[in-house]
Amino acid sequence: MTRGALALAQKVKLSTIADALGVSTATVSLALRDSPLVAGSTRERIKEHAREIGYIYNRRAASLRTQRSGIVGVVVHDIMNPFYAEILRSIEHELDRSRQTFLLSNHYDKLDKQRIFIDTLLQLGADGVIMSPAIDTPAGDIRMAEDNGLPAVLIARDVEGAHVPVFRGDDAYGTALATNHLISLGHKRIAMVGGTDQTSTGRDRYQGYLRAMREAGLEVRPSWRIAGPRTKQGGFEAANQLLALKDKPTAACCWNDLVAIGLMNGIARAGLTPGIDISVTGYDDLEEAAIATPALTTVWNGQREVGRRAASALLDKLNGQAVGQTQELIKPELHVRQSTGRPVER
Amino acid sequence: MTRGALALAQKVKLSTIADALGVSTATVSLALRDSPLVAGSTRERIKEHAREIGYIYNRRAASLRTQRSGIVGVVVHDIMNPFYAEILRSIEHELDRSRQTFLLSNHYDKLDKQRIFIDTLLQLGADGVIMSPAIDTPAGDIRMAEDNGLPAVLIARDVEGAHVPVFRGDDAYGTALATNHLISLGHKRIAMVGGTDQTSTGRDRYQGYLRAMREAGLEVRPSWRIAGPRTKQGGFEAANQLLALKDKPTAACCWNDLVAIGLMNGIARAGLTPGIDISVTGYDDLEEAAIATPALTTVWNGQREVGRRAASALLDKLNGQAVGQTQELIKPELHVRQSTGRPVER
Repeated sequence: MTRGALALAQKVKLSTIADALGVSTATVSLALRDSPLVAGSTRERIKEHAREIGYIYNRRAASLRTQRSGIVGVVVHDIMNPFYAEILRSIEHELDRSRQTFLLSNHYDKLDKQRIFIDTLLQLGADGVIMSPAIDTPAGDIRMAEDNGLPAVLIARDVEGAHVPVFRGDDAYGTALATNHLISLGHKRIAMVGGTDQTSTGRDRYQGYLRAMREAGLEVRPSWRIAGPRTKQGGFEAANQLLALKDKPTAACCWNDLVAIGLMNGIARAGLTPGIDISVTGYDDLEEAAIATPALTTVWNGQREVGRRAASALLDKLNGQAVGQTQELIKPELHVRQSTGRPVER
Repeated sequence: MTRGALALAQKVKLSTIADALGVSTATVSLALRDSPLVAGSTRERIKEHAREIGYIYNRRAASLRTQRSGIVGVVVHDIMNPFYAEILRSIEHELDRSRQTFLLSNHYDKLDKQRIFIDTLLQLGADGVIMSPAIDTPAGDIRMAEDNGLPAVLIARDVEGAHVPVFRGDDAYGTALATNHLISLGHKRIAMVGGTDQTSTGRDRYQGYLRAMREAGLEVRPSWRIAGPRTKQGGFEAANQLLALKDKPTAACCWNDLVAIGLMNGIARAGLTPGIDISVTGYDDLEEAAIATPALTTVWNGQREVGRRAASALLDKLNGQAVGQTQELIKPELHVRQSTGRPVER
């Protein structure tokens, strides 16, 4: 019955709408495709009338005749991570303005899941894809998409040899900022908590910490590197590991804000006061960093800027403009709040 | 050039793959559509070979010939809210199992944005939509989608007269649980912080609080209702308003966990200790409720269950099974942690 209704609706002709409103069928057709050639008020009048009489513009059929489907795919590790959510919000804002539809997927760092999504985009004839590539994504996967008419733009993570635009923060510079801030407060035993060496982000953030420690002539003990955590839960659990260390660090440079907030909660649960007993820095400057207890000293990572530039580079590509294929690094900034202070003498 | 490559790729015939692998063209065609009629290992071999030689299965053309597009749309207020993120994760889990693609949008409670998304789904020939409807969604919008072959299932919020399945928690029952818990601890002055009367969720949660207060013979002052906040930031800002009240409440029943965690941060920022000076309850039992400082007493709201049942009801509808059109209320449970205690004598 509903399929029948659909078939019936599609039989309503462009000419029915054209006759009713006293415009040409070409105008109706353009208006239903949101063409700027039709004045905004006329466009709205035509679409309103079309809606009333149950006309459904069939984009499936139309996309076989035109170059663009109006669909952009976005695939990231996990939208439950507010870091990606903030990037996605700004991508969405850009795509909305050019009336692109947003097709989203999480890959959870599984290559198979990412491949199924890209295959789906190719099958749908999507216009392009913005991706924060899964761990170990081969450059060939991205070339395959590009060679089949699906231009790609990368965010947050790089893939060597992919030769497509990449938008991300300067991660090594950012953790060096945080580590130098802790060193300037007098900390000498500084841990690095969270992140993995399997992503470019993880490697670069760890390198920035290492470089700052070495340039200051400070020792870096392997036990002070607590790798792995990427979530609040992970940071919370890492607190016990940190507090049990011999030569316990007086400060922790965390891989991101989620780990830092979780770690602060874990420190508080153990009866210590984060920001006083142990200084903690985050990374990303999520909305909640400023209202955490204590307010989190962190590195602003430009995620809205990353999203905006990535979406706009993709739209430029779709409009046939030349887009550089180099990495664009956004310069991070340190935001000092309450979670860092001088080390407590014991 | 890339469009040329696409055209070329599409010229690779099913028979090329069939000949290379020694199977029939019908088998190739079924395998590329993931038909269960072809054995898993053969299907994978065919898809692998197709990928190698650059064959792109054209779903756009295929969807004109078959009943199903394999696309399900999901539209909610805002994926940045972990409440929806947790529901979406479980919807995604269900859809993955039946190889449906997930098309996501936020409506930010703007009817226009929701309508554009539904129009897009209709134009793409999507199979169905799962929605947490925008404030003031008319039943007619949902009927229009259904009548045009786009079955709908609602989550978290109801729309009167829509006559489609709704999956949500029993909100009035849940806030009554939280309020009664506070009353049993000895609190008499209890505020209700956050939420709006414009959604069924907001109205029901407030009613549950009111009912519990009245049944216990406690006074309900209008100034103790701080409506509006729905985020951590909102809860954080509400702390000052709460602490400035004459006859200051000794406890706050919050509209959700985000508001509760923000409120606790605001109480701590003001130099008081949440859970000791003022008791706080949340709603949803998000992952981070258990690791908050202090660990949050809250109402488990079954969001994973909501997502799972909604996705599975939609899949049942798509498979032609009868699905009841009544509300399915999931029974909430109180999880008592550290953020609630006896009122402090002043």
